[in-house]
Amino acid sequence: MNSLTEKLLAGDKRAIGRAISVVEDGHGDAAGLLKEIFPQTGRALVVGITGAPGAGKSTLVDRLAHYYRDKNERVGIIAVDPSSPFTGGALLGDRIRMQSMATDPGIFIRSMASRGHLGGLARASVDAVAILDAAGYNKVIIETVGVGQDEIDIVKTADVTVVVLVPGMGDAVQAMKAGIMEIGDIFAINKADRDGVLRTERELEMLLSISSQPDGWTPPIIKTVATEDGGTDALAASIADYEKFIDSRGDQMDSRRVKIAEHRIVELLRDRLVKLAVGERVSEAELSEMARSVADRSRDPYSVVEEIIGRLGISP
Amino acid sequence: MNSLTEKLLAGDKRAIGRAISVVEDGHGDAAGLLKEIFPQTGRALVVGITGAPGAGKSTLVDRLAHYYRDKNERVGIIAVDPSSPFTGGALLGDRIRMQSMATDPGIFIRSMASRGHLGGLARASVDAVAILDAAGYNKVIIETVGVGQDEIDIVKTADVTVVVLVPGMGDAVQAMKAGIMEIGDIFAINKADRDGVLRTERELEMLLSISSQPDGWTPPIIKTVATEDGGTDALAASIADYEKFIDSRGDQMDSRRVKIAEHRIVELLRDRLVKLAVGERVSEAELSEMARSVADRSRDPYSVVEEIIGRLGISP
Repeated sequence: MNSLTEKLLAGDKRAIGRAISVVEDGHGDAAGLLKEIFPQTGRALVVGITGAPGAGKSTLVDRLAHYYRDKNERVGIIAVDPSSPFTGGALLGDRIRMQSMATDPGIFIRSMASRGHLGGLARASVDAVAILDAAGYNKVIIETVGVGQDEIDIVKTADVTVVVLVPGMGDAVQAMKAGIMEIGDIFAINKADRDGVLRTERELEMLLSISSQPDGWTPPIIKTVATEDGGTDALAASIADYEKFIDSRGDQMDSRRVKIAEHRIVELLRDRLVKLAVGERVSEAELSEMARSVADRSRDPYSVVEEIIGRLGISP
Repeated sequence: MNSLTEKLLAGDKRAIGRAISVVEDGHGDAAGLLKEIFPQTGRALVVGITGAPGAGKSTLVDRLAHYYRDKNERVGIIAVDPSSPFTGGALLGDRIRMQSMATDPGIFIRSMASRGHLGGLARASVDAVAILDAAGYNKVIIETVGVGQDEIDIVKTADVTVVVLVPGMGDAVQAMKAGIMEIGDIFAINKADRDGVLRTERELEMLLSISSQPDGWTPPIIKTVATEDGGTDALAASIADYEKFIDSRGDQMDSRRVKIAEHRIVELLRDRLVKLAVGERVSEAELSEMARSVADRSRDPYSVVEEIIGRLGISP
């Protein structure tokens, strides 16, 4: 076993950070590392937290993390930030909080952002969760900034998903349109000290009553005021309830795990295939040259892709 | 030339609809079709519209479409909706509007949603824009529901991108965090009859003043009240200004087009490679079986992916 793997399994924070960088960059032997740690995964409860920007997710995650720390649990947090698309730079809102929590050995926080045109953020964040799981963090929280398809893909790999809404703006209806209603095992209405909380709650109850709940779980609605630590206990209690529910329904939950595994295989595959093509068979410079010919319309992109696939040695 | 291609180039709405279905499903000869129409593309002005759910983008797009129709332009609209992730069903907010506009021969509206685990929405929506462009729609509007990475990837392929904000909630700051500040060529503050519009405007001006504008364009801020058709003219005028700016700065815009082309090649490649693997080399049933073995932890996903890559005949 690789010494990085050994150290991370022993809970060494620096090794964990380096291992996450390995899976994030795709450099080094990411696959080897992940194969080695795989048998040590599957122990953590993975909590996904999503919702529109501005819903106060970061604060809620901090409250939940503190709640778990008070109970002596080890907490890992992955905050997934979309990158600023053209420069590749990430605007992280949680730098300050990272500093304030960094001294606690029972907590590990990492922000992850999309890097450049080859994608792979969904795959990398799921790998990072596996690393924290293997390193002994028994609660791993994965938090997203926005509510796009990418973010939905990420949180739906969690064991339990909390969708965070805020009062007003027809937020529940918007959540439904954005496709996050169905992935919520628990709903939190944050900023519940604001006007309109009852309306949002009723709207949400109505929407939940018309959606199908094939697994027999009725998603609870928890009101929180994260800035004042209101409702954190209730949220944690709901998460624990859902965990018990999962345990009691082994078979049905298995089918969810199979779906998650399938999704993960496809993500990994997508990522590996593109990296085999661009970087190994086609250099970045060649790719730019190809892009130039498409931009000036001397070639069409479909023929270019066929050429790249041909270089991989597979017939298109 | 295929008769479907001929009909769509002649502007036959039914053929256009079928062609979009072909690129959406990936069935039939999507690549052949797209190669045939490619020489006829690059004429339309492609306008990307993005912003948080609830910002009123759909209404704003409708107003803009009517504005262009009054000027006798032909308008194509692609509304990109993330799907409800587990069932694959899409919740479309624009069914009603589709009906009310459907009788106008100078307008074509289509909603597109992500379909299942193999992805490809970004690629398919860009292909749909190409189809509308080739079919003679000289203004093509591509509108997204949310603000995730996927949506950013889609709108950044547009010639001009409008980011829609609403007053209050620190929306400008949230937009920045969500990575959409840098892709905005024009900002619209919609629902500008609400309280807080000046604050949002000032916040936005401040954020814009600290971001770099390497191309020499200062993104204008337009106040709109889409429900009452307020500000539509000003928005259209800004879009026209930006179009003139693009024309006046040939070289610099070329580098943007090369980036877009590169992005498109990678998206196409990703999509084609995954579909070559799953479906052709590995059946859906086999994939489920593999997922089951990962879910029960008898195999790790990395070895599974190596096996699939091996079956494609390429060494991992």
